[in-house]
Amino acid sequence: MKRPLLGILAVALAAPLVQARIVNVADHGILPGKDVSYEVNALLEELQDEKGVTLFFPKGRYEFKPENAVEQYRAVTNHDNSLKRLAFPLFGFEDFTLDGDGSTFVFHGRICPITVEGSNDVVLKNFTIDWDTPFHHEFKVIKSDPKTNTFVAEVSPSKYGFEVKGQTLYLNHYNWQDFIGQNIVYDPNTGAPYWMTKRYQLKRTTAKAKKLSDTRVQLTNATKEAPPVGAHYATYGNAPTNRLAQSIHLSSTKDTYIENVTVYAGGGMALIAERADNVHLNGFVVTSRDDRILATRADATHFLGCKGLVKLENCRVEHMADDGINVHGAYIKVVEKLDGNDLLCEISHRQQVGLTFCEPGDKLMITSRETVLPIYETEVEKVRVLNEARMVITVTDLPKKYPKGPLSLENLTWYPDVELRNNIMRDNRARSALISTKGDVIIENNVFSSQMHGILIEGDNKAWYESGGVRNVVIKNNVFENIGYGSGQGYPLYASPMLLPEQRLGDDQYHWNVTFSNNEIKSFNGQLVHAKSVKNLVLSGNKIVKEETYPVGEQLPAVDLDYCDGVKIVGNEWVGFDFENHVEQKDNCSNVTVKKNKGLK
Amino acid sequence: MKRPLLGILAVALAAPLVQARIVNVADHGILPGKDVSYEVNALLEELQDEKGVTLFFPKGRYEFKPENAVEQYRAVTNHDNSLKRLAFPLFGFEDFTLDGDGSTFVFHGRICPITVEGSNDVVLKNFTIDWDTPFHHEFKVIKSDPKTNTFVAEVSPSKYGFEVKGQTLYLNHYNWQDFIGQNIVYDPNTGAPYWMTKRYQLKRTTAKAKKLSDTRVQLTNATKEAPPVGAHYATYGNAPTNRLAQSIHLSSTKDTYIENVTVYAGGGMALIAERADNVHLNGFVVTSRDDRILATRADATHFLGCKGLVKLENCRVEHMADDGINVHGAYIKVVEKLDGNDLLCEISHRQQVGLTFCEPGDKLMITSRETVLPIYETEVEKVRVLNEARMVITVTDLPKKYPKGPLSLENLTWYPDVELRNNIMRDNRARSALISTKGDVIIENNVFSSQMHGILIEGDNKAWYESGGVRNVVIKNNVFENIGYGSGQGYPLYASPMLLPEQRLGDDQYHWNVTFSNNEIKSFNGQLVHAKSVKNLVLSGNKIVKEETYPVGEQLPAVDLDYCDGVKIVGNEWVGFDFENHVEQKDNCSNVTVKKNKGLK
Repeated sequence: MKRPLLGILAVALAAPLVQARIVNVADHGILPGKDVSYEVNALLEELQDEKGVTLFFPKGRYEFKPENAVEQYRAVTNHDNSLKRLAFPLFGFEDFTLDGDGSTFVFHGRICPITVEGSNDVVLKNFTIDWDTPFHHEFKVIKSDPKTNTFVAEVSPSKYGFEVKGQTLYLNHYNWQDFIGQNIVYDPNTGAPYWMTKRYQLKRTTAKAKKLSDTRVQLTNATKEAPPVGAHYATYGNAPTNRLAQSIHLSSTKDTYIENVTVYAGGGMALIAERADNVHLNGFVVTSRDDRILATRADATHFLGCKGLVKLENCRVEHMADDGINVHGAYIKVVEKLDGNDLLCEISHRQQVGLTFCEPGDKLMITSRETVLPIYETEVEKVRVLNEARMVITVTDLPKKYPKGPLSLENLTWYPDVELRNNIMRDNRARSALISTKGDVIIENNVFSSQMHGILIEGDNKAWYESGGVRNVVIKNNVFENIGYGSGQGYPLYASPMLLPEQRLGDDQYHWNVTFSNNEIKSFNGQLVHAKSVKNLVLSGNKIVKEETYPVGEQLPAVDLDYCDGVKIVGNEWVGFDFENHVEQKDNCSNVTVKKNKGLK
Repeated sequence: MKRPLLGILAVALAAPLVQARIVNVADHGILPGKDVSYEVNALLEELQDEKGVTLFFPKGRYEFKPENAVEQYRAVTNHDNSLKRLAFPLFGFEDFTLDGDGSTFVFHGRICPITVEGSNDVVLKNFTIDWDTPFHHEFKVIKSDPKTNTFVAEVSPSKYGFEVKGQTLYLNHYNWQDFIGQNIVYDPNTGAPYWMTKRYQLKRTTAKAKKLSDTRVQLTNATKEAPPVGAHYATYGNAPTNRLAQSIHLSSTKDTYIENVTVYAGGGMALIAERADNVHLNGFVVTSRDDRILATRADATHFLGCKGLVKLENCRVEHMADDGINVHGAYIKVVEKLDGNDLLCEISHRQQVGLTFCEPGDKLMITSRETVLPIYETEVEKVRVLNEARMVITVTDLPKKYPKGPLSLENLTWYPDVELRNNIMRDNRARSALISTKGDVIIENNVFSSQMHGILIEGDNKAWYESGGVRNVVIKNNVFENIGYGSGQGYPLYASPMLLPEQRLGDDQYHWNVTFSNNEIKSFNGQLVHAKSVKNLVLSGNKIVKEETYPVGEQLPAVDLDYCDGVKIVGNEWVGFDFENHVEQKDNCSNVTVKKNKGLK
């Protein structure tokens, strides 16, 4: 008789029955039509220690202003660190769902919508993130005079207006002003950035502005070449004040699921994740609102130092001012070997400072800063963070003979697998996807159309310090449309480490095992793949069809190989080109097979 | 037999025998001639939990660089909040002495020398704080041509040099550049700022620079009036980047004693204290090094929201770019009454954001923002800090009828007594002493010579938001020399709240009980006291002697009274003036006695 009772008790003790609970925000004074930052902050503070909560926003338009929002000094990788006001600070939550029921969350000024840190099993679903006025201004060209290199534009949003002091244009925001900043110009005929967009780029230093009305400005010598009427500019401020408010930030999270979330704006990326373990996006949309041409000021999605699986399916990301997805680690510099196994290290890129580069137990690779190749694998025993840039890492062991030359570290533990399926990435500045991870990568059934390279497998220890060399990437059955229209050149796949003049190729290849097969390439230039320092590269069954939207642009080899070993170019087909597509390989390549291709010399 | 033993045991339990311990830094690898930031940080971390330690630096020159120093986001009142690198982070120390044995601690770039927070019984003694290169640049005029409004100057320090781009001068620092910024110019004949110094002020916007050599620059139209040869400029950057590195910061401390400490430089104030209970400075010196004209970029000493006793004795503060001492509280704004006794409040001044304005148990005064007068006293029950600017304060009680009109709060608990004895404050920009505290104040046997007013008893809820009205101030037996030479006018004592146009005098006086007696005034203008909204003002036994260093300047009443009640002007003597010194009082004054004065009409 006693045993069952004890058994139940044991179960109860081992796993207390957690009752999932739905909290309707309306019951807590959180209603559409007024600033709810304070109330949402307070409610989240109450809920923090409760597991299994669904925070439910009945469908509506909710406003979030910064004045009464909680604040924290936040280091957000690839953004500008600062004191940040936070609308949804989800710190230390477990099994928590934010369900917007189709609501729109409208933010005002510099406030960060969603911050998930140190939380497990967080679900974000069914809402749209937008801003009352976005972080950029748009100019629609309504008159243009090439003779005087002058154009007149309608400025939007007009809510805060603009000023011209002297001949300098100041664009007003919620509580700050921007100059003409980084910018890109869209072609109304394609809904994408212009072919050779740079020729129309706005230059702050030469631009002479004249205010014609509250919404109309005349600009002279703002561009190298006067833009056509209808051209649609987006100007989005300057570093280091134009990446202060990302839309969603994940850090030190486990098992995050985001479904049916749309992001219309962001003072940074739509989603930035760092040290996140398993992130799954389903139906994540980044796009511009009907009355705007630009969405977020930076990437749609970006993952630094994550692990587990990064999965994107059924997502559409377009009209953002930077890449569709970027997955990578970080190279940090070894400044000095101290006593014992202590290494004084420094984060290399200014937008990575404050990063949790590693924690005890992580596997590290000591790499050469000359060849960017691995030297010795070790493990983290202790980390003493000195400041945002520097730390002392104690490793379990070092090579008996300490390596000569400049060294870096990469974190081998925090590289994720990546799965991209059924996504659309297009009409943005820059690339569709950047992949630099040692995990398994599958990219299948997506549509890519970007004005730089389509998929960039890079890794660099010179500019962005994005590690690392890939080990297993399969890219198949995707559609690539008009890749590279921004500059008139660009490859669907460009795989190459970026090296400084003083850096050099080493003994081994940097990237390994890349398969690019059965993709459909709608192309103005016939280009397929550029590969450098890749071992085992398969290009098979791809069909490259001539597309007439754009001119041919710069003619480069269809396949360009440099220091590659084990390359199979098999069964690809070039269709409709009236120029020659060919393979170019440097003498340093080995084991290259080219067969059964059509339309390729 | 047992009782004594038990007695000893009881004593031992009640107060464990703490052995004071001297830690010689030399035993921890901390030696002159190399950067020791990392080692000092690490040693302090080790010592943090030990009471009674004296950290001893054998006499020498120790270098502190920022690269490996610990860092924290720091809100420092009257400075620019930022991530700050810290050389001596003394957080949570008890009974700790830093003894420099006459050493010089030399800092490089933006690093904060001494930060004491949440610590009790800290003693700082026997060292000098200096910087390798200070936070300002100095220009010594070697040629000057009024016709073309052009001068040529030697630029120092020359270590990092300067650049001229276009015609704009950029002054190089450790790892940043300044324009010509806020500046003041010293007269080589007096060693003090010029008579009417503003006429020579450098104006960045009009200045045309030409680089003549690595240390020599020519400036045209940089000033309204060409400066004389020998004029010695100090230019110290612009807000918000020129108050990032104060020299000593005390916050939430109890019983701090600073003795025989000299400060030659600072990217901010030499000493800033907030929420400090009992601060005693003995022989604290702020001055410029022999090869420079300017010391710190801001005040010598500054106390916001302190309590207990602020005592300065035997101090000499000179050549700093702002006041000698400033003691005050803060007025914060009541934005909105929320439910119950909750007040949504906002810190008013941008350089007070992040301040710990109050904690539970503190007495608060609700004040009018129109009259700046008290309305109702209450107590803090709870504080919810939302962000650097805003907080929700729950008070124990509110008046039954909630007051109409705009309101502020001041913290009555955190006003200190002040004792200034035997100090010298001179040759600086601005005032000698600003006193706005409800504690007892005695200022005796000091020498003051400042280019604005000598002692300013102000209080304002409009510009700096420095509370509050004084209750008992005695100023006696001091020497005031050439007060006001910066603008040709200035009073040894100027007591008046600063009101906005929309603010007004109320029913009561703002300041109470001010005695100014037996002081010796060496004066070019005969001015003694300007008082507005003061109740019980005694001016007695002061001797004002004509000084010939400067012209008379602007002639103002020797005693100027506005809305004062209970004023005794008795037994003062004006000597050597060839013009009339007189008392001027508005009709709103009452109970004014003027008798037994000499040389006064």
